[in-house]
Amino acid sequence: GFATLDHHRAERVGYPEVIYCEHKTTPQVAAIFKALAVKGHNVLATRISKEAAEAVLNDFPSARYNPLGRTVALYQGIQKETPHKIAIVSAGTSDLNVVEEAYETVLCFGNRVDKIVDVGVAGIHRLFNKLELIREARVIIVVAGMEGALASVLGGLVDKPVIAVPTSVGYGASFNGLSALLTMLNSCASGITVVNIDNGFGAAYAASQINQL
Amino acid sequence: GFATLDHHRAERVGYPEVIYCEHKTTPQVAAIFKALAVKGHNVLATRISKEAAEAVLNDFPSARYNPLGRTVALYQGIQKETPHKIAIVSAGTSDLNVVEEAYETVLCFGNRVDKIVDVGVAGIHRLFNKLELIREARVIIVVAGMEGALASVLGGLVDKPVIAVPTSVGYGASFNGLSALLTMLNSCASGITVVNIDNGFGAAYAASQINQL
Amino acid sequence: GFATLDHHRAERVGYPEVIYCEHKTTPQVAAIFKALAVKGHNVLATRISKEAAEAVLNDFPSARYNPLGRTVALYQGIQKETPHKIAIVSAGTSDLNVVEEAYETVLCFGNRVDKIVDVGVAGIHRLFNKLELIREARVIIVVAGMEGALASVLGGLVDKPVIAVPTSVGYGASFNGLSALLTMLNSCASGITVVNIDNGFGAAYAASQINQL
Amino acid sequence: GFATLDHHRAERVGYPEVIYCEHKTTPQVAAIFKALAVKGHNVLATRISKEAAEAVLNDFPSARYNPLGRTVALYQGIQKETPHKIAIVSAGTSDLNVVEEAYETVLCFGNRVDKIVDVGVAGIHRLFNKLELIREARVIIVVAGMEGALASVLGGLVDKPVIAVPTSVGYGASFNGLSALLTMLNSCASGITVVNIDNGFGAAYAASQINQL
Amino acid sequence: GFATLDHHRAERVGYPEVIYCEHKTTPQVAAIFKALAVKGHNVLATRISKEAAEAVLNDFPSARYNPLGRTVALYQGIQKETPHKIAIVSAGTSDLNVVEEAYETVLCFGNRVDKIVDVGVAGIHRLFNKLELIREARVIIVVAGMEGALASVLGGLVDKPVIAVPTSVGYGASFNGLSALLTMLNSCASGITVVNIDNGFGAAYAASQINQL
Amino acid sequence: GFATLDHHRAERVGYPEVIYCEHKTTPQVAAIFKALAVKGHNVLATRISKEAAEAVLNDFPSARYNPLGRTVALYQGIQKETPHKIAIVSAGTSDLNVVEEAYETVLCFGNRVDKIVDVGVAGIHRLFNKLELIREARVIIVVAGMEGALASVLGGLVDKPVIAVPTSVGYGASFNGLSALLTMLNSCASGITVVNIDNGFGAAYAASQINQL
Amino acid sequence: GFATLDHHRAERVGYPEVIYCEHKTTPQVAAIFKALAVKGHNVLATRISKEAAEAVLNDFPSARYNPLGRTVALYQGIQKETPHKIAIVSAGTSDLNVVEEAYETVLCFGNRVDKIVDVGVAGIHRLFNKLELIREARVIIVVAGMEGALASVLGGLVDKPVIAVPTSVGYGASFNGLSALLTMLNSCASGITVVNIDNGFGAAYAASQINQL
Amino acid sequence: GFATLDHHRAERVGYPEVIYCEHKTTPQVAAIFKALAVKGHNVLATRISKEAAEAVLNDFPSARYNPLGRTVALYQGIQKETPHKIAIVSAGTSDLNVVEEAYETVLCFGNRVDKIVDVGVAGIHRLFNKLELIREARVIIVVAGMEGALASVLGGLVDKPVIAVPTSVGYGASFNGLSALLTMLNSCASGITVVNIDNGFGAAYAASQINQL
Ligand SMILES: Nc1ncnc2c1ncn2[C@@H]1O[C@H](COP(=O)(O)O)[C@@H](O)[C@H]1O
Ligand SMILES: Nc1ncnc2c1ncn2[C@@H]1O[C@H](COP(=O)(O)O)[C@@H](O)[C@H]1O
Ligand SMILES: Nc1ncnc2c1ncn2[C@@H]1O[C@H](COP(=O)(O)O)[C@@H](O)[C@H]1O
Ligand SMILES: Nc1ncnc2c1ncn2[C@@H]1O[C@H](COP(=O)(O)O)[C@@H](O)[C@H]1O
Ligand SMILES: [Mg+2]
Ligand SMILES: [Mg+2]
Ligand SMILES: [Mg+2]
Ligand SMILES: [Mg+2]
Ligand SMILES: [Mg+2]
Ligand SMILES: [Mg+2]
Ligand SMILES: [Mg+2]
Ligand SMILES: [Mg+2]
Repeated sequence: GFATLDHHRAERVGYPEVIYCEHKTTPQVAAIFKALAVKGHNVLATRISKEAAEAVLNDFPSARYNPLGRTVALYQGIQKETPHKIAIVSAGTSDLNVVEEAYETVLCFGNRVDKIVDVGVAGIHRLFNKLELIREARVIIVVAGMEGALASVLGGLVDKPVIAVPTSVGYGASFNGLSALLTMLNSCASGITVVNIDNGFGAAYAASQINQL
Repeated sequence: GFATLDHHRAERVGYPEVIYCEHKTTPQVAAIFKALAVKGHNVLATRISKEAAEAVLNDFPSARYNPLGRTVALYQGIQKETPHKIAIVSAGTSDLNVVEEAYETVLCFGNRVDKIVDVGVAGIHRLFNKLELIREARVIIVVAGMEGALASVLGGLVDKPVIAVPTSVGYGASFNGLSALLTMLNSCASGITVVNIDNGFGAAYAASQINQL
Repeated sequence: GFATLDHHRAERVGYPEVIYCEHKTTPQVAAIFKALAVKGHNVLATRISKEAAEAVLNDFPSARYNPLGRTVALYQGIQKETPHKIAIVSAGTSDLNVVEEAYETVLCFGNRVDKIVDVGVAGIHRLFNKLELIREARVIIVVAGMEGALASVLGGLVDKPVIAVPTSVGYGASFNGLSALLTMLNSCASGITVVNIDNGFGAAYAASQINQL
Repeated sequence: GFATLDHHRAERVGYPEVIYCEHKTTPQVAAIFKALAVKGHNVLATRISKEAAEAVLNDFPSARYNPLGRTVALYQGIQKETPHKIAIVSAGTSDLNVVEEAYETVLCFGNRVDKIVDVGVAGIHRLFNKLELIREARVIIVVAGMEGALASVLGGLVDKPVIAVPTSVGYGASFNGLSALLTMLNSCASGITVVNIDNGFGAAYAASQINQL
Repeated sequence: GFATLDHHRAERVGYPEVIYCEHKTTPQVAAIFKALAVKGHNVLATRISKEAAEAVLNDFPSARYNPLGRTVALYQGIQKETPHKIAIVSAGTSDLNVVEEAYETVLCFGNRVDKIVDVGVAGIHRLFNKLELIREARVIIVVAGMEGALASVLGGLVDKPVIAVPTSVGYGASFNGLSALLTMLNSCASGITVVNIDNGFGAAYAASQINQL
Repeated sequence: GFATLDHHRAERVGYPEVIYCEHKTTPQVAAIFKALAVKGHNVLATRISKEAAEAVLNDFPSARYNPLGRTVALYQGIQKETPHKIAIVSAGTSDLNVVEEAYETVLCFGNRVDKIVDVGVAGIHRLFNKLELIREARVIIVVAGMEGALASVLGGLVDKPVIAVPTSVGYGASFNGLSALLTMLNSCASGITVVNIDNGFGAAYAASQINQL
Repeated sequence: GFATLDHHRAERVGYPEVIYCEHKTTPQVAAIFKALAVKGHNVLATRISKEAAEAVLNDFPSARYNPLGRTVALYQGIQKETPHKIAIVSAGTSDLNVVEEAYETVLCFGNRVDKIVDVGVAGIHRLFNKLELIREARVIIVVAGMEGALASVLGGLVDKPVIAVPTSVGYGASFNGLSALLTMLNSCASGITVVNIDNGFGAAYAASQINQL
Repeated sequence: GFATLDHHRAERVGYPEVIYCEHKTTPQVAAIFKALAVKGHNVLATRISKEAAEAVLNDFPSARYNPLGRTVALYQGIQKETPHKIAIVSAGTSDLNVVEEAYETVLCFGNRVDKIVDVGVAGIHRLFNKLELIREARVIIVVAGMEGALASVLGGLVDKPVIAVPTSVGYGASFNGLSALLTMLNSCASGITVVNIDNGFGAAYAASQINQL
């Protein structure tokens, strides 16, 4: 009895069960994964270690492991696909693992998605080149570390809900993501909402809820 | 030339122009209000002082002043009304000015809205009494100070996007809203996104964008 | 002479001697344990490393090692058992080591105890299912990380003293337990008192004092 | 409808209704006070301004106003009196308003109480002179600002539950009570639990719960 | 003897003496101003109160008072004018007093200067409209509060030294300028250097040193 | 009984009683002053308001009021005078009230003293001009706000105990004295010890203890 | 497609391409290095691990690896050399890796440079011995950890732009460079600008821009 | 040339040279040690790693290595011994490495010294047992982590200069020594001065200066 599984979310048809693996042992992760998979739903594991991923893949060889995003996803039954798209836009190469966590999550929840990476404000022309593509999306996830200015700039250029994810990328006075977090909370572009530092999963969850309204 | 007005937002038909009055003098507020009203759009002023509100009402007697929410709203032309509703839920009586700021903003952007106030977690039965009403909304704004736990509890009970607004209500280790802000960012209920402390306007702006998708 | 043993606590009949092992070497822990055991009292070691636990178990094979709670307990003589119970309630699987530290401590002080784990507010029905059991206790220890909202919710539902333990579980803006700590200090449910982050021992000590009044 | 009154607490026989006045207007306070008094229970208002206190006293001339503690208490019916006592111990003259808030609260909840003030650790003989009196209590509230060391010292000298209230008294690196708060959370005397900075009410509430077990 | 005047700076020909008035009384300010003016140099007073400004203007009717920038400047002799220009670029109307402090300082040190205000990133087209003008400058001062993203964006668009001034404009999690300060320190646009929050004077001083190399 | 006077310190012959007035009312200050004066010792009141000072001077016309240092000192009997001197060195004009608090305290404790003010590191020649005088002292108090670098520089130039007092002078990222406090605690000049922000009294007390060894 | 290379900076003739390696894998670094080198420009890699440096040197044996500064520099074509010099001045031996990062960067951008190390304020005569040499430079970079006072002292002694780099050297209340950062931002010597903690690269970039005006 | 040795301190006859080894390599430490030893003075190395200590002992077999205090001391010539004693008092077993650093330093500077360890306030009778011994000292160093209350208690019991060293011992809200640091800075016992967290060396240096006045 180390877990009281919350079947609350499973009632939403097509939604995957999600396991947050950070503080769990490999046997715990494997056991919970199996218990959820057995019910026939999709299952997503986030913050999974290499070791736990291998244990899960052993049990479910068809599951997909994304080492950069630290996720394992198991698809069962027919996967829904939304008419609208979510865009995931990121500032730098170093933000990629948060991008991938968000990416696997939105996919797993049945959304169409575009990734537009490494378009940070230090070279803003890179962002403008992709603006048309970004504007096609119904919801936009912005991922940025260091000073996180990309969220404000993008927020001023689009007319869609923007969910900002500060990352812990940086050093010194970035204080492990605090700088980017404060930037995003204080954005003078209206309508930006923010999730926890490095919380690609949470941003994806919210984006998916919006995309499927 | 103390301001470079941003007509960017006006292009979105039906959206009001919004003036953030906090650091502006009464003559500045009155002048900007007039300049925007003249174009025939709706105009919303937030964080307005009593003095500035009176100056604006002098010029536009039909404008509505909400002293609790510190807003003045001018409606011109036919007001759109959304099919879906936004719910604004708050923890305590002390959070009311943030609630009112959000309320005036969502109204002004043409949304239907319900207010459910003083249903904080210290007496959680009050929240359950209102759950059915809250679930009718397409988007939910949660406003809470002190420890801000209402966002997490509500987030676990509904299946809609939840936008959380921490307030500066509290004392001592609430650190002017920091406590509620951290609570909301770390919520273990998925899909909650957060705006700045006391930022009722920002939450309303984002909620309206989502409500009108 | 690296320690001035405090026999102050031993004077309270039936109370165990407690060794905080965090900054002590294995030989130091083993020597102090022996010096206390020899007097015939119960002995409890907290924050003990695997290595130190093994050294102690070598000397006292009948002692009980709880690796999750990082404790070793030695029972000597007849163990008292309180008429009343303490409840230990926790939010998630990840809080278990703090739960276990508290559990071993209240047991060792001669209290009856119930553990109710993984009933965090993200799925609040899980808490309501256990409310009757929780209400049987004379004192309640609440253990929660991330946003720590469980303390507030429970505090509003029971009429008994609630001692809240914030845990360092979380990431990003949880700031190693600061978020949960602030939540608990600012709880708008009356009568909640708080101990240090991850301090399962301290909460158990206070709960035991109250339970045995 | 600016308030959803929580009659939940009234069900605990003999406990007064408590109004936290900090963010409420004088008319709001007066109206809520009347609404609660009418039911025949005791009523306690905390953090009340002089102006609001006068409005309430106008309505209820027999209510007691404590300007130092910023409370107004109305006693109705027969007041219960506990067999056991609560001790309120404070470090300095400057902590008196927190002491008085706690004092009025424990009184109002029907507890016997002793106040022992200005016995801070800078002159520790003052504390020892009062130790016998303090030890008569079943629960002890310690109130201290600046470095808050009194809680640790007292915690090591008594065998009863100690509830510590850090105060905002101090300057510079006291950071409005943060210093005393951290001291108390890190106390190496076991069994101390802590409430928010300046929260005399909360400490009294918890102490009363314990005293009446 | 309340001051040991530092004539060190006077040795740099043409540079005015600067009086920082913040913690000084009106008589102190007036006395120091007179003592410096008498030597025939230009004199600049910053952070001057209205009262002190009037006292100085009474003594030196030809001095120029800038109430927004809180400066008084006295020009004596022939004013030098640099071949190159400094640009002062700001994000919003609320940053104007910092802009004016910087403006009066660079003028007073003999620099040509352009002010480009209210071009924050929430409506980035406003910045692009002015880019050609900004690029004419030899050094650029960027003034921004809230999230301060303007510094990063501009830093990626120009090839000149950029000195960033975070302002205390904002509320909530802007923490009186901390948010903008961290943004600017962590900027991923290279070559940006930063001064203290609201330190328009310091930025202007550094810009002038560079402009006159 | 709002105070438990601590006669402990009076036993140290010649030392005055000290009243910290910050959180006390005028009648409280006047009463305590009288109670101490009556015993024939010297009395010193610190952090005294203008109003309380006038009340005390009314009772004791021979007492000396220092409005800048916010002190009132009453000398009774023969004043001792130490053979050695204390030097109080400060960085800027704005630090003067802390300097004066320290000055009145060391005087009152019977020490000879030199004040050397406004010799901050921005014009370090001013410090070198006074070095000989400073070196005559047996103990040195350094008072500095903003970045507080004077303590480090002086600490590297003298061979005597240096007590550093950070002041709250500054703005922005000085965070009310935190910057100077951290500077002084991290000084790479050995042998510097530090007191609380603006604590001129505490530095003077420690310096006097050392000077009179 | 893990990177969108920003050729923006390459347009400035003679400037090297710079790769920030901190969060990149060895293959990523090697690939980006090659991609940039192939265009014939100079290439600089900062924050490079030993492993990645070896991979790059394998491809480009003529590149220069500075293990202390954690840089690899590849020079191609004729290297420009500025008429003016940059001085890099540091407080202690422990700051050397930041010094070396700055040194390699200014060299690589074609500047003449002097290094003056270990002249911290604890022994200020060491600084005065080098003052003449430092004054020859057109721009000065100051590198200091712990309390960072060197920036203020030097800033008061020279008439040139000073760029200050706080380092993470220190312990305890240095808070990984926060102390030095605050010192530098609050410097009472005018004209000092500041970059992020340990950001030798950024200081060098800005210094080079100024040196080549 | 990686170091500019500061012979400033060596001029004080009998004082040892001190090497702070934290950020230095083993060869650097060994080289500096040799360079200083050769001049015939005493040499003290602090924060030395096991590896570096062995290298130094290889060169100087008569040097004394204290692994707990992380020091190596080399005595040459006749060692002075002060008439007065320094007392080093500590709260718990976990503070011992800071105690030992202070101990080796005061010894090396020629002072007589007493160590009184593990007398923290949780069992205050332990302190009273040693008070007579402590009062024999001319200066007292207090070493304490967690809540650091020992400094205040001792400061109120003795009439000698007290230098307080906060240690990083603790967990959770001790924030690596911040809690103890704030406690000591805010002590309501007068005359306590404070050094950096874990800075046993600095406290010893200051104590030695005072002891030898
Ligand atoms: N990467 C993540 N970050 C934050 N929350 C997560 C993450 N992944 C999963 N979760 C949430 O954590 C819950 C599972 O927590 P647990 O009961 O500890 O397994 C899921 O239902 C999700 O709502
Ligand atoms: N300016 C001051 N800052 C800190 N402590 C002070 C100050 N002035 C007096 N004190 C101390 O505060 C004690 C008096 O506290 P109280 O009992 O509140 O009057 C005195 O004995 C002094 O030790
Ligand atoms: N040590 C450094 N610190 C901060 N920024 C750097 C550093 N080294 C390089 N950069 C910047 O980072 C940019 C490259 O970032 P990236 O696209 O992640 O390789 C370069 O153009 C530089 O402007
Ligand atoms: N443990 C220590 N903590 C702080 N400062 C120290 C310590 N040990 C030595 N020092 C100081 O650091 C100086 C040596 O610095 P360095 O030039 O880097 O070797 C010595 O002269 C001492 O003043
Ligand atoms: Mg990039
Ligand atoms: Mg309410
Ligand atoms: Mg769970
Ligand atoms: Mg007192
Ligand atoms: Mg604007
Ligand atoms: Mg000055
Ligand atoms: Mg050195
Ligand atoms: Mg011990």
